[in-house]
Amino acid sequence: MEQKDVMIGRHSLAHVLAKAVKNLFGEEVKLAIGPAIEDGFYYDFDSSKTFTEDDIPKIEKEMQKIIGHSEKFERKVLSKIEAKSIFKDEPYKLELIDELPENEEITAYTLGDNFIDLCRGPHVENTSKLQNWGYKVSRVNGAYWKGSERNKMLQRIYVYAFPDKKQLNEHIQMLEEARKRDHNKLGRELEIFTTVDYIGQGLPIMLPNGARIIQTLQRFVEDEEQKRGWLLTKTPFMAKSDLYKISGHWDHYRDGMFVLGDPENDKEVLALRPMTCPFQYQAYLNKARSYKDLPLRYNETSTLFRNEASGEMHGLIRVRQFTISEGHLMCTPEQLEDEFRGCLELANYMLKTLGLYEDASYRFSQWDPNNREKYIGTNEQWDEAQNTMEKILKDLGIKYEIGVGEAAFYGPKLDIQIKNVWGKEDTLITIQIDQMLAEKFGMEYTDKDGVKKNPYIIHRTSIGCYERTLAYLIEKYAGAFPVWLAPVQVKVLPISEKFIDKCNEIKSQLENVGVRVEIDDRNEKIGYKIRSASSMKIPYMIIVGEEEVNSNTISLRGRRNENVSGLKIEDFIARITKEIKDKVLN
Amino acid sequence: MEQKDVMIGRHSLAHVLAKAVKNLFGEEVKLAIGPAIEDGFYYDFDSSKTFTEDDIPKIEKEMQKIIGHSEKFERKVLSKIEAKSIFKDEPYKLELIDELPENEEITAYTLGDNFIDLCRGPHVENTSKLQNWGYKVSRVNGAYWKGSERNKMLQRIYVYAFPDKKQLNEHIQMLEEARKRDHNKLGRELEIFTTVDYIGQGLPIMLPNGARIIQTLQRFVEDEEQKRGWLLTKTPFMAKSDLYKISGHWDHYRDGMFVLGDPENDKEVLALRPMTCPFQYQAYLNKARSYKDLPLRYNETSTLFRNEASGEMHGLIRVRQFTISEGHLMCTPEQLEDEFRGCLELANYMLKTLGLYEDASYRFSQWDPNNREKYIGTNEQWDEAQNTMEKILKDLGIKYEIGVGEAAFYGPKLDIQIKNVWGKEDTLITIQIDQMLAEKFGMEYTDKDGVKKNPYIIHRTSIGCYERTLAYLIEKYAGAFPVWLAPVQVKVLPISEKFIDKCNEIKSQLENVGVRVEIDDRNEKIGYKIRSASSMKIPYMIIVGEEEVNSNTISLRGRRNENVSGLKIEDFIARITKEIKDKVLN
Repeated sequence: MEQKDVMIGRHSLAHVLAKAVKNLFGEEVKLAIGPAIEDGFYYDFDSSKTFTEDDIPKIEKEMQKIIGHSEKFERKVLSKIEAKSIFKDEPYKLELIDELPENEEITAYTLGDNFIDLCRGPHVENTSKLQNWGYKVSRVNGAYWKGSERNKMLQRIYVYAFPDKKQLNEHIQMLEEARKRDHNKLGRELEIFTTVDYIGQGLPIMLPNGARIIQTLQRFVEDEEQKRGWLLTKTPFMAKSDLYKISGHWDHYRDGMFVLGDPENDKEVLALRPMTCPFQYQAYLNKARSYKDLPLRYNETSTLFRNEASGEMHGLIRVRQFTISEGHLMCTPEQLEDEFRGCLELANYMLKTLGLYEDASYRFSQWDPNNREKYIGTNEQWDEAQNTMEKILKDLGIKYEIGVGEAAFYGPKLDIQIKNVWGKEDTLITIQIDQMLAEKFGMEYTDKDGVKKNPYIIHRTSIGCYERTLAYLIEKYAGAFPVWLAPVQVKVLPISEKFIDKCNEIKSQLENVGVRVEIDDRNEKIGYKIRSASSMKIPYMIIVGEEEVNSNTISLRGRRNENVSGLKIEDFIARITKEIKDKVLN
Repeated sequence: MEQKDVMIGRHSLAHVLAKAVKNLFGEEVKLAIGPAIEDGFYYDFDSSKTFTEDDIPKIEKEMQKIIGHSEKFERKVLSKIEAKSIFKDEPYKLELIDELPENEEITAYTLGDNFIDLCRGPHVENTSKLQNWGYKVSRVNGAYWKGSERNKMLQRIYVYAFPDKKQLNEHIQMLEEARKRDHNKLGRELEIFTTVDYIGQGLPIMLPNGARIIQTLQRFVEDEEQKRGWLLTKTPFMAKSDLYKISGHWDHYRDGMFVLGDPENDKEVLALRPMTCPFQYQAYLNKARSYKDLPLRYNETSTLFRNEASGEMHGLIRVRQFTISEGHLMCTPEQLEDEFRGCLELANYMLKTLGLYEDASYRFSQWDPNNREKYIGTNEQWDEAQNTMEKILKDLGIKYEIGVGEAAFYGPKLDIQIKNVWGKEDTLITIQIDQMLAEKFGMEYTDKDGVKKNPYIIHRTSIGCYERTLAYLIEKYAGAFPVWLAPVQVKVLPISEKFIDKCNEIKSQLENVGVRVEIDDRNEKIGYKIRSASSMKIPYMIIVGEEEVNSNTISLRGRRNENVSGLKIEDFIARITKEIKDKVLN
């Protein structure tokens, strides 16, 4: 079914819902509006009766009845006077009618004999067309009339609606799965992060479990980058406005920045950085460079600050302070393609190691020539940069979507996109080509011919923002991280406190080989301890009781129902250290 | 000699200098002032003649002559009229006389027959007392009369002066050594850090060498803390003013903070954090705690921001943004002493591992009851906290100085102090006892008796601020870091490009065991490459030529004149990996 027809179906069902509610609860219920939305529709009602959980089956049954009657939708064109007469008992409809421009055609749709709704349409001809549809009332929320707090609070009934029952069930299943995996819920339950009102929105606090995962990721990234010839820097998180005036951020990005001080009155105005570029360039600028020094690759585990609007912020995915695997690479034009490939290979290697590669897609973010003031540089520079990037992407055989107007203000980007459990897409990793900022910062190299030239700069991340990546990992694995990333890899569970010594011995043996291990020495039953470790999605539980102590073995439980006894600790150590070293995915 | 007598000697020598300058350059030279200072004295002159390097030996000789004459200092008490008559040709002296309060006694000192200087004294009786003194003109600077830019620029002659020649020579040697070790100079030469005017003061940029050292230190600290039962957190660098109002920083520390937004007008005001405490407390507050959970130790590699005055900032020692090995520990009163000892042991372990232990001293920073408004809490709470700390320090046998008025606003501190090459002392590490903030933040635990209580909090660092620690390490080792910390541990030097393959092979072998290694493949003579690596204080150079390739060995040069050939690479690998693992000091 085409999307257009899906929306017509949903909108028609909205009328069915309104009629059902009127049938059930009488004319006292007043109608507001009922649009189609992404996964169904909703309808807002004003009623002295509060709709409850118990009403939902009744409403669904009444809708089914109306559909079963094969009732007709019929379009009526009305004069304003006619319309106001028909809807004289519907104050919200009257308000809408009054707001219509004088010359606008007013239409309404009847449904069967005793229902009419003000509506532009179109609708299906007959509810029989809706017979195969799958729909389900999902929830009832409060919602202000016209979205304004000054207006009355109405009751909004949400309904999922799809052209067949299979699609509906898939959607409901997807939502159930999403709810279970949602990092913003699960991440708190697993004590990965929290937020605190008096600290502020978009400023998550990483609890020990979250901090440990990010530490593990950070070391992995920094080591891998070092192997690939990147030189680590550590640059300040703020600078005088002077810097941002050179880079162009002061003119093109100031709204997204945290500014310290008053640009009108203060002698010195500082701002927190929204990006690392001009800070890291200082390493390049620290001495004179020749073509022999290139490519020069600088990486940094960098913290950035962006003044996001309050409605935009979400869990660990969109925050006001984040840590990013940042890098800038300076090279000659001849080196550009190879270096771009190197950056892409690194990004893909990271995605594969994390198990996120299959979920990612590419987006070629280009400038918008009709929005000239958003960008620095000349049209020729943009054409050249985009053509270069297009050629490289073609050579590399990359399949991508195009995003016009999504470039950085200084150059085009290859964005690696990923969707969260709710289907919302965000950029995880970005690789950008820039031939403008080197000139602005006076970055040069002496070429073979003795002439000073500006290098190309590649801006790139390798694993993206650690917070956002962590969010996707939580959702991907529903919190059951690959062993190498698990904040606690092994939980040792003594059956009683008699066995604590043995547990401590096992703990030491594991710690000596770098395994993250804890003992649950609470005075609780073993079943409780197992459930508790399972609920925290800890990869391995080692159970220690009489039998284990006597035979000098362990009983092992894996989080996926593995259950082995009589295992030698040496064998388990060999197994888990190999899993960690190889970064085995689940 | 007592310090008082040293200052009298220096002040007397200042008159000798003034007389010598008058003798040499005539009455045209006008005298301003000439005080004694920490390492000698200076005198400010107004003269149309510019004093140059060439004048210095002449001045020193003339001073020697005056001292050799055994000239007498004699005190004269003068009326204002007499004084103005005597100094009628000395405009600066006249200005000083005019500024004296009406009833103040005016004194001057003659020196021999033809020199008199307005002066309170006292002085030695006779220049013969100065015969054994060691003095040396160190430099001539410009200096404004009375330090104000609106006044005339005078010439200030600085002289080192000590009671004997040995002390003078020691001082000069110390300064030469300090100049060579000064991290603010050497750190730039070794490409450890740089600063950039348009980024701002106190915001150093860590170049790859500096970033690598800090990365190495950070991993070492985090791993050691993990072993000792600390739980890593990662908390945001800013918060709403609401947080700082609870903690007391808003009232007691706001001047030192960077505030984002206008407290008068903005709905939400954020501020960058000057400390980690209330952020890290959120990990404690994340669930209900019982006495069984204590002690709870949280550590964090934390970035802090302090709005230092521009005159205060210095190299890496005093900066506006820094990274600190922060930690907060919550415990019961019974656990306090053991936990304090643990923190101190950790700090001492860090100092010993870095080789800084011998240079450190302890300072017990107490509150100032006469400056009540600087502190939160009651007198009783302060007495209790300080008595507790005193008892612990006594039990641990710690020798300390007392610093009244140097406590944090919430509690007393044990500060571990260290001096830089210029003799200036700063705090490297601090351990604090706090029994006030837990209450403010509602941090509780349920005790054995079922009663909810506030834990004691220890605030502590283990290695201090990474930037500051790095500064002391540069100065301590004059840039020749212990091998485990050296940003580049081995430089491989091919005698010609024929041997590059062998060099790459050696590089891979070393990298495989985690050694940081670079090849100098420049088209330069081997002597030049050796000097270049030596000047960067790289621990080991491996020289590869015909002989080494044929015999499959290496020639090794250590930075301390070690020179071995025919060494097997395996033997060198065994040696350097052991040095790194054991963190051998130089």
